[in-house]
Amino acid sequence: MNTAAIYHRPESEFAYLYDEKTMHVRLRTARGDVREVSLLHGDPYLLNKEKWHKKPLRMTLLMSTDLYDYWFVEVTAPYKRLSYAFSLVGVDGLPVFYGDHGVYPLTDKFLEMPNNYFRMPFYQEIDRFKAPEWVKETVWYQIFPERFANGDKSNDPEETLPWGSKDPSYKDFFGGDLQGVIDHLDYLEDLGINGLYFCPIFEAYSNHKYDTIDYLKIDPAFGDAETFKNLVEECHKRGIKIMLDAVFNHMGDTSPQWQDVLKNGEESKYADWFHVNEFPASYKEGSFFEEATDITYDVFAFTPHMPKLNTANPEVQEHLLAIARYWIEEFDIDAWRLDVANEVDHAFWKKFRQVCDEAKDDFYILGEIWHSSQSWLQGDEFHAVMNYAFTDAIMGYFVKNELSMSKMVSEMNNQLMLYRDQTNQIQFNVLDSHDTPRLLTETKEDKELMKQVLAFTYIQPGVPCLYYGDEVGMTGGMDPDCRKCMIWEEKEQDLNLHQFTKELISVRKTNQKILSEGTIHWKQVSEDSGVIVFERKLDGVILTGIFNTGTKEVRAEKAGDILLSNLVEASDTTVEVAPRGFALFIQE
Amino acid sequence: MNTAAIYHRPESEFAYLYDEKTMHVRLRTARGDVREVSLLHGDPYLLNKEKWHKKPLRMTLLMSTDLYDYWFVEVTAPYKRLSYAFSLVGVDGLPVFYGDHGVYPLTDKFLEMPNNYFRMPFYQEIDRFKAPEWVKETVWYQIFPERFANGDKSNDPEETLPWGSKDPSYKDFFGGDLQGVIDHLDYLEDLGINGLYFCPIFEAYSNHKYDTIDYLKIDPAFGDAETFKNLVEECHKRGIKIMLDAVFNHMGDTSPQWQDVLKNGEESKYADWFHVNEFPASYKEGSFFEEATDITYDVFAFTPHMPKLNTANPEVQEHLLAIARYWIEEFDIDAWRLDVANEVDHAFWKKFRQVCDEAKDDFYILGEIWHSSQSWLQGDEFHAVMNYAFTDAIMGYFVKNELSMSKMVSEMNNQLMLYRDQTNQIQFNVLDSHDTPRLLTETKEDKELMKQVLAFTYIQPGVPCLYYGDEVGMTGGMDPDCRKCMIWEEKEQDLNLHQFTKELISVRKTNQKILSEGTIHWKQVSEDSGVIVFERKLDGVILTGIFNTGTKEVRAEKAGDILLSNLVEASDTTVEVAPRGFALFIQE
Repeated sequence: MNTAAIYHRPESEFAYLYDEKTMHVRLRTARGDVREVSLLHGDPYLLNKEKWHKKPLRMTLLMSTDLYDYWFVEVTAPYKRLSYAFSLVGVDGLPVFYGDHGVYPLTDKFLEMPNNYFRMPFYQEIDRFKAPEWVKETVWYQIFPERFANGDKSNDPEETLPWGSKDPSYKDFFGGDLQGVIDHLDYLEDLGINGLYFCPIFEAYSNHKYDTIDYLKIDPAFGDAETFKNLVEECHKRGIKIMLDAVFNHMGDTSPQWQDVLKNGEESKYADWFHVNEFPASYKEGSFFEEATDITYDVFAFTPHMPKLNTANPEVQEHLLAIARYWIEEFDIDAWRLDVANEVDHAFWKKFRQVCDEAKDDFYILGEIWHSSQSWLQGDEFHAVMNYAFTDAIMGYFVKNELSMSKMVSEMNNQLMLYRDQTNQIQFNVLDSHDTPRLLTETKEDKELMKQVLAFTYIQPGVPCLYYGDEVGMTGGMDPDCRKCMIWEEKEQDLNLHQFTKELISVRKTNQKILSEGTIHWKQVSEDSGVIVFERKLDGVILTGIFNTGTKEVRAEKAGDILLSNLVEASDTTVEVAPRGFALFIQE
Repeated sequence: MNTAAIYHRPESEFAYLYDEKTMHVRLRTARGDVREVSLLHGDPYLLNKEKWHKKPLRMTLLMSTDLYDYWFVEVTAPYKRLSYAFSLVGVDGLPVFYGDHGVYPLTDKFLEMPNNYFRMPFYQEIDRFKAPEWVKETVWYQIFPERFANGDKSNDPEETLPWGSKDPSYKDFFGGDLQGVIDHLDYLEDLGINGLYFCPIFEAYSNHKYDTIDYLKIDPAFGDAETFKNLVEECHKRGIKIMLDAVFNHMGDTSPQWQDVLKNGEESKYADWFHVNEFPASYKEGSFFEEATDITYDVFAFTPHMPKLNTANPEVQEHLLAIARYWIEEFDIDAWRLDVANEVDHAFWKKFRQVCDEAKDDFYILGEIWHSSQSWLQGDEFHAVMNYAFTDAIMGYFVKNELSMSKMVSEMNNQLMLYRDQTNQIQFNVLDSHDTPRLLTETKEDKELMKQVLAFTYIQPGVPCLYYGDEVGMTGGMDPDCRKCMIWEEKEQDLNLHQFTKELISVRKTNQKILSEGTIHWKQVSEDSGVIVFERKLDGVILTGIFNTGTKEVRAEKAGDILLSNLVEASDTTVEVAPRGFALFIQE
């Protein structure tokens, strides 16, 4: 047995409370190396009395990556305390014990020593990772406000360009605003989305508003507090949740605080609000507008216009936490999306979480983190992260041809095994955003492929987010090209794609419980034929997706009633799925 | 290469800030499987500009266990941000890349993708694990107050037995008190210890005082607030720190709060202070005084006299945190030892840490946890745990013959690799305590072996703690036998052992910096001869220990000046070490 590959970590994604009385336990072994795994478990104080180490509980093979098998079992504890370890049988028939001091032979003498077991010392409800239920039911829609719709010409910035008159460059303004969103709520409601994620809407200098001037003020070009209040109310009436973008890693350099630092240097009362390494705060202009050298203060990336905030400073904490509270309490927002969340300290995010929890029940906190995020997802900071790491695997196979099918599956499973199930159920699955090329552009404008990718993503655990305009066939490369004006002229919209997206959203919402909580089964991963069959199961119901990524038509048995399909011909009992086609089935 | 054995976890003991500007990075590989490991690292935003992925930084082999090699490197970051991954060369010559998405071939295309790297997103000083410096300089002495010394006959409980008149049974009282400790401070100062760790001293029913009645009151049989204040002042004058035992997992059943629950049931204002699963709170007496059945409330172990506190209840939190603050602010204690710390929730301990940090700079928090403790040692709960898991390995080889020499080394290294270096430097190394048999009893009263084990333990990372009376040759099996009355009659004390302990403490204190911070090198681990040679190194200084655990005398080169030895004959250049003997050397 490859004993060096065995891994478990107490009180982590490998061992956590799922609900008040149920703990989830995972174990990692080398792929194909172990035949059978059992949990030896019981009350820490009853080992010798109950001899529970002689009563193994079989674990199931949950999922596999290219290197690993992951085993799983649910376990309760009558006294809310658990000692546990693992007995494994290798494919070679060799049994071993794996516990808190590593790998040992399965001998009674060793098994009777209480210290050889891992511990979940007490089932602490207060420490359990809790996720807001409503997020599972949500299909998000991301709006870049300057480009969604212009509902109020009176607040247009000077030099506003006619709507959609050109592809955007970095400094263009087109007049999009909050009234524009309100004006199109019927459109959004009809599409079926029930969560709006707004890029920043607070006063800022740029069109993207990531360089905040005043966090307590709606950008005048977007409207005012009244407009926003109206927007939230109208959304809530329609069952649509609101998520705002909190840019707390840095401020804009035109903010009064930073201007004060520039003016007064070390004497500024805001001198310690930032990370100024050497006064006076300065930099040398580079050739490109955001590039600079010799910056004497910490910034976002190398952008001198975005000085990094010192979130370890209690005054800054107080300032930002008051902002977090204000928009929840005064405007009843439902979620914060945290920009560059990984570069802000954990101490601050823990306080932030407390403030949000106090301000509103079931509030959702989403961090922008592109890499492994375990340390933010322990239950006392974020609920989820923007799940690029997961959707990158999907894009890498379906669209970019960078990964093999099996590597995609491996990487998706790998990502799921980084987090607790509660997290996986509400991860934020984005195929594109204001920070990436648009999906249709990535598919080289292949709309059938786009539909296939969307359908595949929408049946995964986690909640999907649609980037504004994707549903009507908008294209665009990297920023700023992905930030074009929304197409509102019906004759320029792809109404077929719109109808498809609407149906997919409906399927997702109608089947949200199985898609959130159902188990995951890769029924067929066929590199040769290009066929993927993927199942979700919950309470006897099976939702199946078949995807043809190959070059030839494939025939398959129907796996229940068809929920949605594309490029498919169905008979009574079978389906013919063309290349780039798919079908989703449900069987009660 | 055994790629499935490779492991790294960002923001954990594998990747953490050591000081403000230095990050420690560890990587685990299968033992003997990898020839060379390098860190590929640089600023996340400069990967493509600086091509830093082409500039590998060699990692060193830090230590090994039976299954693993651990690699290590220190790394700084000019912009306080780090992307990093690993390039490995197997003993078979095969190179691979290991990063945030697992193991891949070392290809340029893959290496140029920023998302394939692990991240330390920002060197956050506020999140860094900080340890009080003074702890490194401390040699602790544990006092079980009822049995150390009777300094005030007037506060003796009824039925107090004459000092040392018999071996203790569970319910005996012998009259030990705080005045007794004050009376013997000269003795303790002479011994050289500079930290006193007290078992509970607050009002309680039993002799061990783990069943607290009133946390704000010194037990009347031990003295009063005045006595304790005097004790702390006298200790501080002598440079001795004070650590008290906080029993916050449970209360005593004679406490007014629990009595109120018994009396008023669900109507009690303390009903939610505990975990009562069914009112009325009750149990059936068992045969043994602490054993019971059908307990309708959660307790410590199965002890109905110790109802578990509901530390998720804000009132309980407030009550306990006020206690934590009171003894620090009013009496100037230096440390809290937390009883059954693992069974109390993390949310509470995080608040507790904040309260202590606010109340006193450099306060030390020590948790009683016997198993892997990573989740309490992230920097915002405890500084260290009672390091039984580490010393068990020493006892298992030297004393109990349960482990081979190499398994001992493996397990000690394994324990060190569970925690950050800051933690390892102040772990609390106990060879015995009020909860275990005494060391001399474990060695079957072999005093030479006891000296060898003490010396071996005192040169390990972590801080040693001496259990009262061990230094004069006290014996005792499991509780209550290990809680005998301290021997004060000189003719009954082992003065040779006392002198040895004093010298060992002096060596430990004189060389504390190298023993705390020095690197660790197992120079010789010879199962055949029984010889262990172990080195610590810091700034060019080498402290070497040679231990003969075999049956034959061994000769070795002197590795510097002798600091301390036992059963050794030294010539100018060599030493002859008899079985159970040892020598410690220093070479500047």
